[in-house]
Amino acid sequence: MKLLRFGPKGSERPGLLDGEGCIRDLSGVVSDIDARTLADLQRLRVPPVDSLPIVSPDVRIGAPVAGVGKIVCVGLNYSDHARETGQAIPREPILFLKASSSIVGPNDDVILPPGAKKGDWEVELGIVIAREARYVPLANAMEYVAGACVVNDVSERSYQLERGGQWDKGKGCDTFCPLGPYLVTLDEIPRLDDLRMWCTVNGRTVQDGNTRTMIFDVPYLVHYISQFMSLQPGDVISTGTPPGVGMGMKPPQWLEEQDLMELGIEGLGTQRQRVVRYTAEACS
Amino acid sequence: MKLLRFGPKGSERPGLLDGEGCIRDLSGVVSDIDARTLADLQRLRVPPVDSLPIVSPDVRIGAPVAGVGKIVCVGLNYSDHARETGQAIPREPILFLKASSSIVGPNDDVILPPGAKKGDWEVELGIVIAREARYVPLANAMEYVAGACVVNDVSERSYQLERGGQWDKGKGCDTFCPLGPYLVTLDEIPRLDDLRMWCTVNGRTVQDGNTRTMIFDVPYLVHYISQFMSLQPGDVISTGTPPGVGMGMKPPQWLEEQDLMELGIEGLGTQRQRVVRYTAEACS
Repeated sequence: MKLLRFGPKGSERPGLLDGEGCIRDLSGVVSDIDARTLADLQRLRVPPVDSLPIVSPDVRIGAPVAGVGKIVCVGLNYSDHARETGQAIPREPILFLKASSSIVGPNDDVILPPGAKKGDWEVELGIVIAREARYVPLANAMEYVAGACVVNDVSERSYQLERGGQWDKGKGCDTFCPLGPYLVTLDEIPRLDDLRMWCTVNGRTVQDGNTRTMIFDVPYLVHYISQFMSLQPGDVISTGTPPGVGMGMKPPQWLEEQDLMELGIEGLGTQRQRVVRYTAEACS
Repeated sequence: MKLLRFGPKGSERPGLLDGEGCIRDLSGVVSDIDARTLADLQRLRVPPVDSLPIVSPDVRIGAPVAGVGKIVCVGLNYSDHARETGQAIPREPILFLKASSSIVGPNDDVILPPGAKKGDWEVELGIVIAREARYVPLANAMEYVAGACVVNDVSERSYQLERGGQWDKGKGCDTFCPLGPYLVTLDEIPRLDDLRMWCTVNGRTVQDGNTRTMIFDVPYLVHYISQFMSLQPGDVISTGTPPGVGMGMKPPQWLEEQDLMELGIEGLGTQRQRVVRYTAEACS
């Protein structure tokens, strides 16, 4: 299934994408795509898709999961990206957290804070957790995964690296985590370790990678993270980015107002964000 | 008011502490102490306390806020603690995030992960947000604060500092964030910048500080953090720890199974946690 949420920000309704690419309203079946629904996904009985109301294709798409408890991100997890930055391949996954208040829909504006000068993009494979995972053996890790989605791990590099201490400061700004368009359940993804992924800025390809160059793969990450903190239904793991971020260019390239980011992952859909500068109105 | 939540883990009910130190049941007044209640705290009409049902003093106390969206922590925020560790006083606040899945009640067990060898304590003043704070001017910062509570920012120093990259890995383990016992509303706290705070381990005082040696005070932190990410109702800011953590001792002292941590802040109540080692039963 391709599960999604549609409607105005803050009052999204659950839906799914049918085989023809139409959005169908699931709100008669589940109250939302949230921890409760994900924990019980196996038992979700969806009536024949034809019987579900069709939704206008013009509707806004929200993030495909409601009430995400945490976003655990993996840094420097692509061997070609590590090479590009001149950094050593990490011996174990680098983890950081992205504030869940940064989540927006896949096509919402990305809003640069007033003082932000080094906005950057990162197309990433996002993994959505189905049930509580704590000290999970590697062999069972995938039993805890509901599916996958596209993540843009938007970053402000000066906040991340030049303002003291920890990366979180430049990763959690509001709108810095476009999620979706869909949560694609695992049964619809033949191989998580061979998915093409890309990002363009104003039509120019900046990232063109494949999950096959991940250093730590999805089962390992679920296993590994669960040794440090429990993963809860609805939590998201963002598994790192391939080469081509603005920080790695010579000279570095940063996001500007009115830039258009378009990104996607094979089988998981595409995102499209306009970059704007914060004004009180843009954020309300 | 001293707001709290009582009852078994996962099904806590809202309550308050009356003037005699008895817990009163608030579940007839609000459904929970959560974002919705905090955002509307000014309009909360509590009936005469005498009319509220008394709760057994033996009841378990939970964390005083339900559904915390994020915990923003401030590192190295006490001048005497910075001196003690030999580190320079930060030019601006060091921020990191603590996974919200780490929250437990103030007297619940603290569970060391199977491989954890460097567990440590940190008594901290926690600030609970009342309403959305985004790019808040310093002068208005306190309008966004509901109140304060005790936090034990439990840490695993080897996970935090020796396992690659970012601090979050050693800060977000389950049970590493005892909160409470109460959320004390601001009107009951005469001065946030002059509160004694302490921590004992097995009866021996290890931390004995005062919020007056904070480098960045509470209004500044609310203002500052809101420049990087919005603070949402129910979010917690943990404002840093005074001297006396295990890592700073010579030789360092780490938590052992069966250790008893007791900690408190003047006017905000006390916590008491037994340290246990993870077993499948301990965590279920």
